[in-house]
Amino acid sequence: MTPEDAQKLDADHPLAFARARFGLPEGVIYLDGNSLGAMPVGAPAALANTAERQWGGDLITSWTKHDWIDWPTQIAAKLAPIVGAKPSELLIGDSTSVCLFKLLAAAVRARSGRRTIVTQRRNFPTDLYVAQGLCDMLGLTLRAVDPSEVAGAIDEDTAAVSLTHVDYRGASFYDMRALNEACHAAGALMLWDLSHSAGGVELDLDGTGSDLAVGCGYKYLNGGPGAPAFMFVAERLQNELRSPLQGWMGHAQPFTFDDHFEPAAGMSRFLTGTPSVLALAALNAGLDTFEDVSMADLSAKSRKLSQLFIDEVEARCGNEVQLASPRDPAARASHVVFAHAEGYAVMQALIARGVIGDFRAPDLMRFGFTPLYTTFEEVVRAAEILSEILASREWDQPRFMTRAKVT
Amino acid sequence: MTPEDAQKLDADHPLAFARARFGLPEGVIYLDGNSLGAMPVGAPAALANTAERQWGGDLITSWTKHDWIDWPTQIAAKLAPIVGAKPSELLIGDSTSVCLFKLLAAAVRARSGRRTIVTQRRNFPTDLYVAQGLCDMLGLTLRAVDPSEVAGAIDEDTAAVSLTHVDYRGASFYDMRALNEACHAAGALMLWDLSHSAGGVELDLDGTGSDLAVGCGYKYLNGGPGAPAFMFVAERLQNELRSPLQGWMGHAQPFTFDDHFEPAAGMSRFLTGTPSVLALAALNAGLDTFEDVSMADLSAKSRKLSQLFIDEVEARCGNEVQLASPRDPAARASHVVFAHAEGYAVMQALIARGVIGDFRAPDLMRFGFTPLYTTFEEVVRAAEILSEILASREWDQPRFMTRAKVT
Repeated sequence: MTPEDAQKLDADHPLAFARARFGLPEGVIYLDGNSLGAMPVGAPAALANTAERQWGGDLITSWTKHDWIDWPTQIAAKLAPIVGAKPSELLIGDSTSVCLFKLLAAAVRARSGRRTIVTQRRNFPTDLYVAQGLCDMLGLTLRAVDPSEVAGAIDEDTAAVSLTHVDYRGASFYDMRALNEACHAAGALMLWDLSHSAGGVELDLDGTGSDLAVGCGYKYLNGGPGAPAFMFVAERLQNELRSPLQGWMGHAQPFTFDDHFEPAAGMSRFLTGTPSVLALAALNAGLDTFEDVSMADLSAKSRKLSQLFIDEVEARCGNEVQLASPRDPAARASHVVFAHAEGYAVMQALIARGVIGDFRAPDLMRFGFTPLYTTFEEVVRAAEILSEILASREWDQPRFMTRAKVT
Repeated sequence: MTPEDAQKLDADHPLAFARARFGLPEGVIYLDGNSLGAMPVGAPAALANTAERQWGGDLITSWTKHDWIDWPTQIAAKLAPIVGAKPSELLIGDSTSVCLFKLLAAAVRARSGRRTIVTQRRNFPTDLYVAQGLCDMLGLTLRAVDPSEVAGAIDEDTAAVSLTHVDYRGASFYDMRALNEACHAAGALMLWDLSHSAGGVELDLDGTGSDLAVGCGYKYLNGGPGAPAFMFVAERLQNELRSPLQGWMGHAQPFTFDDHFEPAAGMSRFLTGTPSVLALAALNAGLDTFEDVSMADLSAKSRKLSQLFIDEVEARCGNEVQLASPRDPAARASHVVFAHAEGYAVMQALIARGVIGDFRAPDLMRFGFTPLYTTFEEVVRAAEILSEILASREWDQPRFMTRAKVT
């Protein structure tokens, strides 16, 4: 496909309107929205308004005057169509890692007597670290197995299963319904990390019978660097579960200053301390980029973008790179990895040419496609530039070989 | 004192230069910087730069290009002169409540075998809730006693003592050195919550032999609503202590994506997930308001402001209000409470007249003095307006009697 043909695809696409919602720099093809989503054009004004008019002008009275106190639930409600949940099942607050701890701890408390947490070997690292920290603290066993062995590892000693829905390397994903059912059959609770899914693929938390989930605010949700994460707790479980990380914001009566903690009804009980209002304002702008977006259109565009990239790369680069993601578009989330023995240097050469993806050891070049702003034209041009870099061995320079601290 | 006399005090004060560092609205006397610090004039530009130039323009590359990865320690270092600690003993991250949980859990882990946490009855609520959550989780006992009984309650079963340094109601404070010594004599660890102290009074964490501390970023530190909190761990304890809330940012090698958590050396091990970079940018602007500020000057001005307020209120209002803070300036932190049976309505009437303080049940009107921006003139005018409201019974109107959700 030529870039010109791709431009036609872009112009005709039902999500064409969404690109203008982002402020993307000139001359850059950004294929790393799966690590840090691009900036919504509305974010700077939202931050300026929250800082200057609310914080600066209305000071402490903003907690009621501008409803800051309700932002964690109000903003979370915008996630409902994105993840397939009820607004009342969602909450924004803390980092993904802290949210994982809260819900995993709440799950093992609700299944006390059971001594095992099941997870996946080579899960997203922070998911493993959180589970290890909790297990060390409580004397539980963390059982990490290969993805194909997870369902078989769940038994009557399993309190909870903690999995990342989409693999951050290859982009394969679990069958949520099947795993939820396997968990429930054994009486365990299932906790999904949707960090690499939410906003990139269609999700149906309620329809698949999910129990608990968390997800990242700064990847496909475009909430800004280090944006607060979200939590999901199925309505049927909310009043049964309690997080040990209890703070004033989760109290039933946060302004009575009682000595004893009484959890709020519903999702608010999973709040802990005061969230950053500025960070919430930016995340709100990020979620507004999904307004009037059909998640079915988004998922369809995601598969088409990644398929076009695979086709173009394989046609142009031949055997120089090896696809390390599922070849079946229906088995792939919204990023693609290609392996190359010198993948780190090749990615640095791509970045130097304005194509920003990232690298995952030992040899994976990762390219993320954000259906709201990635265009078919960019995908074709990125494949073209990759093929030029490989053909010319442009990557084979000392300046591209030195690993930076963050890759 | 007349407002004109007070103006002279302001003009001659060594901290007079600091007022211009804040963007305060016209017509408002803001005496609630102990709840939410005023906006530094540098905050909007810091947010705009971080959002537009860094996030928007440099996208994922900002993690190295703009050192985002080091902000939690770089920004924390600015706290060193404010709290009397080494830069390497400080870290920014998470809410105060989450930081309390991390350090309290780390403390009881380091003193395993001991089964009790000692705290104060009517401590700041979230401190109690966090300690209750941790004790419930681990089967420990939380022993809450009156302030005068704390030292006597520490024994060989005490793992940790958790206290708020400054009482959020009356503004009295503990003798940090004496409590630290009582803790150490019993082999326990001391955790201070400095939320109502840091930036309002002079502190010397290292000089008083402190072990652990946390504090709020959005009160006297002016970091913005819900700003991230800070943590202090004495250098001698850092490699002995581990938080169970372990996440990728606290790993010794966060970019190797290992399956097993290995804590970083030093303070970084107490990081968990990715902090909000936007919130950090605002907090950085808040800490910059302390540049070239002598904490001795700040503490001296704090005492002088609160003493002037007490003198003026008592001279003008007589017995209509009762001082509920220590009369000795040396025994008081940077706020003052006066009791009035209809304190809630009186405070609403004050706010309607542009004097913003807050109310704490059952009858306490709280007035915070932020030495960086509160002027002596404002203190005199606030006392004058309070006396007018009391003399005219201006507060006795239905619109001032209805309690809002946040007071």
